Amino acid sequence: MKTIEWLGDSLRILDQTKLPVESVYLWTKSYEDVAGAIEHMQVRGAPAIGATAAYGFALGALAYEGSREGLDAYMEKVSARLESTRPTAVNLFWALRRMQDTLREARSVEDLAEVRKLLVQEADKIADDDRRMNRLLGEHGNALVPPKAAILTHCNAGSLATVDYGTALGVVRAAVAAGKEIKVYADETRPFLQGARLTAWELMQDGIPVTLIADNMAGFLMQQGKVDLVIVGADRIAANGDTANKIGTYSLAVLAHVHGIPFYVAAPTSTIDLKMAGGQDIPIEERAGKEIREFRGIPVAPADVPVYNPAFDVTPAKYITGIISEKGVVSPPYSVNFLKIMVRPS
Amino acid sequence: MKTIEWLGDSLRILDQTKLPVESVYLWTKSYEDVAGAIEHMQVRGAPAIGATAAYGFALGALAYEGSREGLDAYMEKVSARLESTRPTAVNLFWALRRMQDTLREARSVEDLAEVRKLLVQEADKIADDDRRMNRLLGEHGNALVPPKAAILTHCNAGSLATVDYGTALGVVRAAVAAGKEIKVYADETRPFLQGARLTAWELMQDGIPVTLIADNMAGFLMQQGKVDLVIVGADRIAANGDTANKIGTYSLAVLAHVHGIPFYVAAPTSTIDLKMAGGQDIPIEERAGKEIREFRGIPVAPADVPVYNPAFDVTPAKYITGIISEKGVVSPPYSVNFLKIMVRPS
Repeated sequence: MKTIEWLGDSLRILDQTKLPVESVYLWTKSYEDVAGAIEHMQVRGAPAIGATAAYGFALGALAYEGSREGLDAYMEKVSARLESTRPTAVNLFWALRRMQDTLREARSVEDLAEVRKLLVQEADKIADDDRRMNRLLGEHGNALVPPKAAILTHCNAGSLATVDYGTALGVVRAAVAAGKEIKVYADETRPFLQGARLTAWELMQDGIPVTLIADNMAGFLMQQGKVDLVIVGADRIAANGDTANKIGTYSLAVLAHVHGIPFYVAAPTSTIDLKMAGGQDIPIEERAGKEIREFRGIPVAPADVPVYNPAFDVTPAKYITGIISEKGVVSPPYSVNFLKIMVRPS
Repeated sequence: MKTIEWLGDSLRILDQTKLPVESVYLWTKSYEDVAGAIEHMQVRGAPAIGATAAYGFALGALAYEGSREGLDAYMEKVSARLESTRPTAVNLFWALRRMQDTLREARSVEDLAEVRKLLVQEADKIADDDRRMNRLLGEHGNALVPPKAAILTHCNAGSLATVDYGTALGVVRAAVAAGKEIKVYADETRPFLQGARLTAWELMQDGIPVTLIADNMAGFLMQQGKVDLVIVGADRIAANGDTANKIGTYSLAVLAHVHGIPFYVAAPTSTIDLKMAGGQDIPIEERAGKEIREFRGIPVAPADVPVYNPAFDVTPAKYITGIISEKGVVSPPYSVNFLKIMVRPS
């Protein structure tokens, strides 16, 4: 079951809001469809959002009916719409910048069909790169995993959050492939339940032992010595290593620190945003209160109760043992070591 | 709306599994009914469970059809059934012991009707004491609350967790009554959602400002300086101050500690169990995985995913700034100061 699949004139998206009860696909045929799917979290996870937006950009060009001269201006509108969907994951902006660069490099290409082909090729390349990088990342991460390990993860940084294989769960998969005895604890991850719905599901599909817990149980698990290491994904990493990831990650990092448990972030280098000096600069998306007040339309709280629903939080670099990327594991101090790794080929 | 109400020959229980959507009462007419209501968490919260079990004991005696000689043996069976409902909250055992003591003191009373009357009177006294103690506790706690304060609480330690007024929320109510500007953040408290369903609801009924958050947001709130103090209830407090309370409390206490935020436990002295030297001795109830896998019968995770669902955790005394009781605020070292307070009249 593929997170996204390009079908030549449309992008097929596995609707993650329906999992694990139903496996339903969306056929997105326009950039507006793609933007809606990202906004409604039918596709989510920083790397998956990046690749999806790239195909959304390509779909915008495919549907464009004007002249070659008008294309660039039109595509700015397409890009702006796709950028407006979710503010925190930097991969969205990174992928759209790659698409815009491709369009700019095709400035002298007169034939619209040729420009479209170049854009689809670039989106394919972004998706292919993601597949490849997650495998590399998994291998690097595997080196950190003991032969027998209980790994706690939060949200879903698996194949469903990427084009394939996953980041945090890519490390788990690589460790399992290496013959290690791995057990995963998955935080259910309120309010959207990515851990319960997606991580538990995808690990079970692969036959990897997983135990589901509520988010508030992680500390108790650590207190009992049941967690050997924590691995999470990332939505944006600042130049100093501060990491924005799914809400709840910060609490886990503090708890891991207090219990002396290694805490790793697994993310491709495209998630590192050197333009952000520190975590305080990263925009944090706030989502509708309804996500907490209701569950599938059933109220779980008073209908009019005020809600605070930040979708992400920022974990200061000091709580992060290492950042696992496709170019290797980066150790602190991140501001220095990111610069070294960024010039290294993957 | 009363948590429980004695109606002469039955106990009316507000069914907390239906709140806030519906306000439905259960009329429990037998000790078996009462035991079921406790087991299914239709009534919950350590002090409320204590008073409810006491009335359940009285209902056992009311329904008894044998001779005076056989009563004591029969009531042992009744007590054992009520004790078997939930293992962690000590108030259950404490209240049943008070009822058994009353029965023992009535050893020379021949008239069954008279014994029954004494038992109902004792249950009434347990309930009345709880009302009175929560008011006293609230006053003592109020002294710790600044004139303007954002208070984070977990689960429901409110009027619904007690006969009336509440413990942690009793402190909130006393602070509001004293004219303080209080804002409450309520953790939704998975898996049973006591914070979303009960705490949010009861504070809104009283017009006290409350904002609902998912459990995993508490750390981020603290990081942003949005929390001035944390107050939670307790299910059992060991002689050294280690405190069992709703799962997630331990994580909150660690987070509060790291952020330099005072962390208070509010509980009547009946929650202190001097027979338990430390938290490691407190039995922790594990509940069915279904509570996490499903929401009102709707699956939120793969149907067969293994689940770990401890209902409580233990917060070591070192993370607890003070324990607010009806006899005053107890500071560390708890093992010494509990002994002083236990002999003090309330």
